[in-house]
Formats: sequence, structure tokens, C-alpha cells
Amino acid sequence: MRSAKPVLAAAQAAPVFSNRDKTVEKAVALLRERGLAAAAKRAGREAREGIVASYIHPGGRVGVLIEVNCETDFVARTDQFQKLVRDLAMQVAGLAPLYVDVDRIPVAELEAKNAALLGDETVQKKPAHIRPQIVEGQLKKWYAEVCLLEQPFRDTDQTVRDLVTAAIATIGENIRVRRFTRYALGEEL
Amino acid sequence: MRSAKPVLAAAQAAPVFSNRDKTVEKAVALLRERGLAAAAKRAGREAREGIVASYIHPGGRVGVLIEVNCETDFVARTDQFQKLVRDLAMQVAGLAPLYVDVDRIPVAELEAKNAALLGDETVQKKPAHIRPQIVEGQLKKWYAEVCLLEQPFRDTDQTVRDLVTAAIATIGENIRVRRFTRYALGEEL
Repeated sequence: MRSAKPVLAAAQAAPVFSNRDKTVEKAVALLRERGLAAAAKRAGREAREGIVASYIHPGGRVGVLIEVNCETDFVARTDQFQKLVRDLAMQVAGLAPLYVDVDRIPVAELEAKNAALLGDETVQKKPAHIRPQIVEGQLKKWYAEVCLLEQPFRDTDQTVRDLVTAAIATIGENIRVRRFTRYALGEEL
Repeated sequence: MRSAKPVLAAAQAAPVFSNRDKTVEKAVALLRERGLAAAAKRAGREAREGIVASYIHPGGRVGVLIEVNCETDFVARTDQFQKLVRDLAMQVAGLAPLYVDVDRIPVAELEAKNAALLGDETVQKKPAHIRPQIVEGQLKKWYAEVCLLEQPFRDTDQTVRDLVTAAIATIGENIRVRRFTRYALGEEL
């Protein structure tokens, strides 16, 4: 009962704002669409400039080296690009992905993971025809752990790929995370 | 003629100082010996603390990530240790070694290098019995290029290994360069 009224009030108020919201939404969607279309077009362009940057977690027990490419040295020097690179390096430090993207996972490891998931007891108990679908879902979850671009970015509902795509759209150059290395002090090699 | 007199004067003055010099020299040698002996003893001790550090060359086109271990977190936090690590990272940035030490060179690469040196025309022209000796000398030169610890340190007559050994002696803990990664913007992977 305590929360019912405000919720109801919000629900009643909603229609008043919803037209304006819808207009804004449409515009945003359109811009986003245009941005992404432009980003998609830019994704084919060569990106050989950029920067090599690092992030060392305070205390010096975790460190990251990253190379992010763009098309021109001019963009590489901008604050916006450098902030993006720093965000990416911090993401690697915090969430410890193993690969930049799904296509960088070694085939042998992907096959081993696939076999392990298929062989799992709870999967084996399901009807055979739905197992591949279940495994596919679990692989996607795994990608979101081990691949930087598939990881959720901080506590947003964006992935890191979304972040990069948005940067491509606003900066206007193709941007590519080329590679990263993450060291944790004393970890097994 | 202009410089002959001072040189002669210095040469004549030399004996006056040489006894003191010799005494100092002996003491330094002794300390160094002890230091190295201590360093040698320490080299067996486990080094699991330390820091992960980075050096990015101005402009962001070359960057290095490095892990250097010592025995305690206390030493890891000292300026002396951190300066050593920074020197090592800058060395890697500048001289681009491929491996920490000779024992990290993959066997296949070592064998290929050996075969290439032995097969070289100028070596093949030498008598067979001295060829291994020539190749050994050339391998040592190669080590001094590709192995961080075998590289000359800046324009001193020390190697990087000497630098680390001296640090072990003065800091009093085992120190180990565990690994490094060097990125140059846009290089072939």
C-alpha cells in the first residue's frame, strides 16, 4: 500500500509526458540509427593510428596495456579518444577479459568449451533437440565474460561494443581495440 | 702540446692518490663481492611480491607493461624498487628486447638461429673446428639484443642483469623480472 499511490500517480502522469517522450525517443532512435549506420560504414575503414596506453590499478597489483586504433593521429590526440581508451583499459583491469572479441578465441578453446557445455549433466537431461539452443545461450554468457567487446560496460545496460560503436558515431572515425595485456601480480603464467 | 701538460701532471700526481684509490678500490671490490655473494644467495629465495608497472613513451606510440617481483610488499613500495622497475620498463621501451632472459627463448627459435648462423657464408668459409666458437660468439651478441637481462643498460658498461644484481645487493631482497609486454603502435602481430 505504501508504494501503490506514487506508482499509480506516475502511471497517471505518464500519458501527459509520453508524447513528448516519444518525440524525443524517435529523434534519439533516428540519430542513433544514423550514427550506427555511419559507424557500420566506418568499420570497414583502415585504422592504423591511435595510442598505446596503460592503466595501473592503485597499489600496482594489476596493470593493463592496451592498443586502440583510429584513423588519424589528430583523433588519437583528442581527449574524447583518450578517455575512451582509458575507460577500456580500466574495464580490462576490472573485469579481466581474455580476448578482444569472439573471433579471437582460439578454435581449440571454443570447441573444448562447447563440448564441456554439451556434456554437462543438466544439459544432457534435456531433450536432444533443444540442447544446441541451451548450449548456444550458455556460450553467449561465456562470451560476455571472456570477450572485452561482449562484456557489460560498468553498470550500464551497454556492452563495451556499444560504447565503441557510439564513439565511432560521435568521433566519426573507425575505432578498433587491437589488443590488450593484463597482468595480475604473481598470477600463474 | 696544449693538453700534454695537464695529462703529464695528472700522471705524476697519480701515484700520490693511487694507494688511497687502491684501498677504496679494494673495499668497493670486497663490498661488491659480498653484495654479489649475498645477491647470489638471495636469488634462490621466493619473490612473489612486487609491482606491475607501465611506461608509455611520450606520444603514446610505444608502451610497456612489466611485472617485477621482490620478496615483500614493504620493498615493493620503496622508491628505490619503483625506480628500478621504471628503469627496466624504459629499457624495454627503448631497446625492445623479446625475452626476459636466455632461458625464455623458445627452443625452436634458438635452434633456428643457431642453424642460420652456422649456415652463414662467412662462417662456412672458416675451418670447421672453429665454427662452433664463432657461432657461440655471435649467439652471445644476439642474446645481448633480444634478452633484456643481457642488454647493455643505457650507456653504462653494465648489463641490465648487473643493474638487477646490484639492486638485490643494496635492497637486500631477491628481485626478479618476471615478464614484460611491449606494444608499438600498428606493428605487425
